[in-house]
Amino acid sequence: MSYHKQLTIGLFGFGVVGEGLYKVLQQTPSLSASIKKVCIKDPAKKRNAPVSLFTTERDELLNDPDINVIVEVINEAGPAFEIVSTALKNGKSVVSASKKMIAEHLPELLQLQEVTGQSFLYESAACASIPVIRNLEEYYDNDLLHGIKAIVNGSTNFILTKIFEDKLDFQQALLLAQQLGFAESDPSLDVEGYDAVNKWAFLLTHAYGIIEHPNNLLFTGIQNIHSMDARVAAEKGQQIKLVAQAQKLHNGQVASFVIPQFVPQDDHLAFVKHEYNGVVIESGFSDKQFFYGKGAGSFPTASAVLSDLSALRYDYKYEYKKLYHHQPNKLTNDYYLRVYVSFTDWKHIPREKFEWIEEWHAREERKYLVGVLPVNELLQSDWWKTNATSLILTPDPVIEDIAIKQLKKKSLELAGII
Amino acid sequence: MSYHKQLTIGLFGFGVVGEGLYKVLQQTPSLSASIKKVCIKDPAKKRNAPVSLFTTERDELLNDPDINVIVEVINEAGPAFEIVSTALKNGKSVVSASKKMIAEHLPELLQLQEVTGQSFLYESAACASIPVIRNLEEYYDNDLLHGIKAIVNGSTNFILTKIFEDKLDFQQALLLAQQLGFAESDPSLDVEGYDAVNKWAFLLTHAYGIIEHPNNLLFTGIQNIHSMDARVAAEKGQQIKLVAQAQKLHNGQVASFVIPQFVPQDDHLAFVKHEYNGVVIESGFSDKQFFYGKGAGSFPTASAVLSDLSALRYDYKYEYKKLYHHQPNKLTNDYYLRVYVSFTDWKHIPREKFEWIEEWHAREERKYLVGVLPVNELLQSDWWKTNATSLILTPDPVIEDIAIKQLKKKSLELAGII
Repeated sequence: MSYHKQLTIGLFGFGVVGEGLYKVLQQTPSLSASIKKVCIKDPAKKRNAPVSLFTTERDELLNDPDINVIVEVINEAGPAFEIVSTALKNGKSVVSASKKMIAEHLPELLQLQEVTGQSFLYESAACASIPVIRNLEEYYDNDLLHGIKAIVNGSTNFILTKIFEDKLDFQQALLLAQQLGFAESDPSLDVEGYDAVNKWAFLLTHAYGIIEHPNNLLFTGIQNIHSMDARVAAEKGQQIKLVAQAQKLHNGQVASFVIPQFVPQDDHLAFVKHEYNGVVIESGFSDKQFFYGKGAGSFPTASAVLSDLSALRYDYKYEYKKLYHHQPNKLTNDYYLRVYVSFTDWKHIPREKFEWIEEWHAREERKYLVGVLPVNELLQSDWWKTNATSLILTPDPVIEDIAIKQLKKKSLELAGII
Repeated sequence: MSYHKQLTIGLFGFGVVGEGLYKVLQQTPSLSASIKKVCIKDPAKKRNAPVSLFTTERDELLNDPDINVIVEVINEAGPAFEIVSTALKNGKSVVSASKKMIAEHLPELLQLQEVTGQSFLYESAACASIPVIRNLEEYYDNDLLHGIKAIVNGSTNFILTKIFEDKLDFQQALLLAQQLGFAESDPSLDVEGYDAVNKWAFLLTHAYGIIEHPNNLLFTGIQNIHSMDARVAAEKGQQIKLVAQAQKLHNGQVASFVIPQFVPQDDHLAFVKHEYNGVVIESGFSDKQFFYGKGAGSFPTASAVLSDLSALRYDYKYEYKKLYHHQPNKLTNDYYLRVYVSFTDWKHIPREKFEWIEEWHAREERKYLVGVLPVNELLQSDWWKTNATSLILTPDPVIEDIAIKQLKKKSLELAGII
């Protein structure tokens, strides 16, 4: 009945995801996949699996000719890259969940795939259980992808949900997230947006053929969100979400950013609460597509690894169609963003950098304004992330040059402040 | 940069979808797809395209060696099947949007694909812009697909939304749907559930490898939904949706039905309003995935056709993995459904057929009860669709045999009526 390939797996890492995969595989006999060996760092740690399964010698896996698939779910980007690149060179398929590693080494990983001809799959690295890479790769492969916006980090979304629904302040919400296992003991990777921008880096590749190191992308996290920001949002009937967004401009170039954003209650992303992730794909003629599911956790991540393993039975490879088969889109910083900024003192705000300011409020100790900034200003400065200043994008924040010219005069009249 | 196949299209049908596709293709030059000829029925009708494009001779398309893809978007199942089968036999790939034709001829179409080796794609026939077939086919191809429930018919969902949000009665809502072009002048295909069950028939194939003629599936539409039903739903904080559902039972067999269902406000499907469609996939370990998008209309349907065309450039074929590579799941009718039934007179209700009745209300002219029925009773009778009787499933309606035995005694005690 079945002619698919038998998978013999060498697994690196037996943490939350690795152990999840081990359990999941035990319950999916039809997959014909078995873990032959698991490489771990700490042999003394108690594991819920037979001792004979484990080793601390990576070459026992990487040089075993029986092992045809390496699954790599460790935490450190450096060793992960070494494991993945050696495995590919040794003629093995690889499944990885290491977003940071993939984001930072994408050019080398693309080359390794080309040279070795091996499959390298990493659906679990993006939005865990949501098959976003596969859909971008296989389904939206025409030039109609107008935009994509997404909640790709479950920890920050959990914290923001708690701030909004249970009126916790940031520190309380973070503590709760840590207690429930949704945030690491060092939460800066999630909270400051690093995790989200890492994922966004390779999602940009699958969406638009863009290859850019995450350090060069415009991003921040939710670390400066103030309870007043949540109050302002609630007054406007909106929520605040950490939104990763890419949008094709009229000139065909792509704007991309990962920044907190006000989200109206009827927006698809407002539906995404707690540790869930969501992706809204806007493609020409089909309006908006919305994908929603668990974005983190042992089993959701393991199930995404499982789907990659399942695809390997049929020798599935990412074709990187937007990169290789189409003219890739170019990233641009030549556009403007409409932003809300809350702050303690005007002295921290370079008012002259704004194209215009539409609103400002000074009713409380903490002040806020709404205005339009050139993206290059955000990339080249950090006043908007320091001194407890909080910058949040307004809904539909992108303003293209052409719109600026049309709107500027009118807005200056209305605002009358610059 | 690009090595994909050049597509030369013969198009059958120039109605809403056909003309939509014509326009969409003009705006997607990167697809390298061009329509060489369009076959229409009525040459006198005015068309928004050059006259030279049209013919009434189907063989001009089917026998043209230049044409390597037939796109079939006509309305009649019989002629559609003839066109599709001839095209496949003539060595052409085929893209079709004809759900009825596909549902009714699936065994022959599977055989034709196998014999000819040609691609036959029909994503647009299921939920228009939502890539549900592709995801079921490519992503959920392990034995962890616990269940799938979906809103697959935009017209009925539009009518139900209007009944709930604008308090229209069924006839008013239907009229509005017709005025806005969301329902045909003869709306019975949509309203009585035929369109939904046709889609569901082949979605069952891609989800579970089940091949069943739609006539043999358990289904009804929304034709008997009464405004009192909407009131009862609102009192319980619920909506009513026409839900197509398949669920794997403990014995590995699959329960399937397309019947109106009460949907709690926090259910994913409650998010699906107006003419939109939504699909909730419940797979082991990854919890629930939710896909949402426009389920009908010229451009959303054309864009799904476009994605199929795009896939043809890479010679994509459905592999029907659940059917050919796995042990297909079997459909069963050996289970029970928990139902709400509203009616005018007890004489229309065969009380003895219920396993038990948990609630009944006779406060108004129209009465209702909540009880549990064996599915075979629903398949073999039609009292629940006639005499203005309205049957709506309760949330989580499936009761398996084993649960019945455990619950029966307790429920009989509680209800005390059978």
